[in-house]
Amino acid sequence: MSKTFEYRRRVEFCETDAAGIVHFSSFFLYMEQAEHAFWRHLGLSVFRQAAGDLLVSWPRVSVSCQYRGPVAFEDEVDLHLSIARIGEKSITFRFAMSVKGRHVADGETTAVCCRVHDSHSLESVKIPEEFRTKLASYLP
Amino acid sequence: MSKTFEYRRRVEFCETDAAGIVHFSSFFLYMEQAEHAFWRHLGLSVFRQAAGDLLVSWPRVSVSCQYRGPVAFEDEVDLHLSIARIGEKSITFRFAMSVKGRHVADGETTAVCCRVHDSHSLESVKIPEEFRTKLASYLP
Amino acid sequence: MSKTFEYRRRVEFCETDAAGIVHFSSFFLYMEQAEHAFWRHLGLSVFRQAAGDLLVSWPRVSVSCQYRGPVAFEDEVDLHLSIARIGEKSITFRFAMSVKGRHVADGETTAVCCRVHDSHSLESVKIPEEFRTKLASYLP
Amino acid sequence: MSKTFEYRRRVEFCETDAAGIVHFSSFFLYMEQAEHAFWRHLGLSVFRQAAGDLLVSWPRVSVSCQYRGPVAFEDEVDLHLSIARIGEKSITFRFAMSVKGRHVADGETTAVCCRVHDSHSLESVKIPEEFRTKLASYLP
Repeated sequence: MSKTFEYRRRVEFCETDAAGIVHFSSFFLYMEQAEHAFWRHLGLSVFRQAAGDLLVSWPRVSVSCQYRGPVAFEDEVDLHLSIARIGEKSITFRFAMSVKGRHVADGETTAVCCRVHDSHSLESVKIPEEFRTKLASYLP
Repeated sequence: MSKTFEYRRRVEFCETDAAGIVHFSSFFLYMEQAEHAFWRHLGLSVFRQAAGDLLVSWPRVSVSCQYRGPVAFEDEVDLHLSIARIGEKSITFRFAMSVKGRHVADGETTAVCCRVHDSHSLESVKIPEEFRTKLASYLP
Repeated sequence: MSKTFEYRRRVEFCETDAAGIVHFSSFFLYMEQAEHAFWRHLGLSVFRQAAGDLLVSWPRVSVSCQYRGPVAFEDEVDLHLSIARIGEKSITFRFAMSVKGRHVADGETTAVCCRVHDSHSLESVKIPEEFRTKLASYLP
Repeated sequence: MSKTFEYRRRVEFCETDAAGIVHFSSFFLYMEQAEHAFWRHLGLSVFRQAAGDLLVSWPRVSVSCQYRGPVAFEDEVDLHLSIARIGEKSITFRFAMSVKGRHVADGETTAVCCRVHDSHSLESVKIPEEFRTKLASYLP
């Protein structure tokens, strides 16, 4: 069975809105931050990581989120990250989000592996072997 | 044929990230801002609007975005808002986004009409007739 | 000698900008988050805390930041919070910020103790005794 | 008498917080956006602008804001930008902010003119003559 990665993130005041709850867009920040923590946990890093000469970035091509219940200031959101799909060049993460066991949201983000050129331009490339190896136990 | 609503939004510097382009989460801010401009255009307002005694808010239940190409600082993003679906209590907006005619993203947001109680709690309610009437020419 | 409070905050990707470094406004989020962590450390909470019937909020009246050097994605910022001044109704926090011992910024925020009324309106009040007592060892 | 530059910015929902008003950090975004609109008004651009081979960026070295009154969702904030000081390499902008004539905040930002190298590193340089000429009628 494939592993999941757990990440806990406290809601900050600036992430709430005048409705008194977390702004819906903040969940995408939480998902991205869980993903970055996951890469760090694997000893990799998005954006900064050089695998040999290769600076790798993962621009999103598709993201979504379903909201199940409100989340408030200082709540601690538990994100359960799993890999839903992996392709030659892309990866889809799935996130189940809860607060003290109460299910609050589900999200998905698909990103494409890209090489960053000096000029800031991006070129999609195969996911480097180093990344694929370290992801192995999390693959579906 | 149902009408669409057009909204133009310049990319601000704080919305870019170290990859040199707009952070993916910013597109959800653009969509929400286009929606709010649409409500204002109809003479309504989210969150503040009282229809009689009713303070109406529209919390999101589902959102998604597909990214087609990069967007940079000071680009002007044109959002074409249309109504994809309407139910008794919910509404789904669709957004086609472009920069100078170049298609950059597509998004969708579904929100539920809620009455805001003094205690900040939300209760889903039927979309008020006043809203439905003003939306008429935009309905699918 | 008055105590300080230490808070460590990793830089998230969404907080960087197209110049490749942390956006200058993000430092105010770090300072606020350090302050909120400090209130929690004292067993208090901004915004939520009821001292008896009193819901206390601390709107800012004055803030400033001086930048000493660049901060990048995934850097860990150490914030050293101290209390620079305290009045009947207001408190001024000072923040020295560093990354691995390299001094990167200094900031100051002054907030006024306010009672939050049901109507969302704010009224400035004396800092409650419960707060003042718990702050004692940090006072200048 | 030196000229000022006027910029109007509507408050967006994501910029409010659970206290029901604009988050204090948002005022720094408004000031930056007014400044960028000012550069565009002069036919210049921060960050992107090449004066000859020179890519110019203006990292902040010092910023401050004093808050005079609350600002709410959908308020229109009028920013009156003026130049408080100019040096060989730095410029200080002053911002008076109001909503429908009601004074809500005052801010100041000091930035240093920098050349951006390919490697993302920044080097402080004299403000280019092209910039200084276009700023002339706004100088104190």
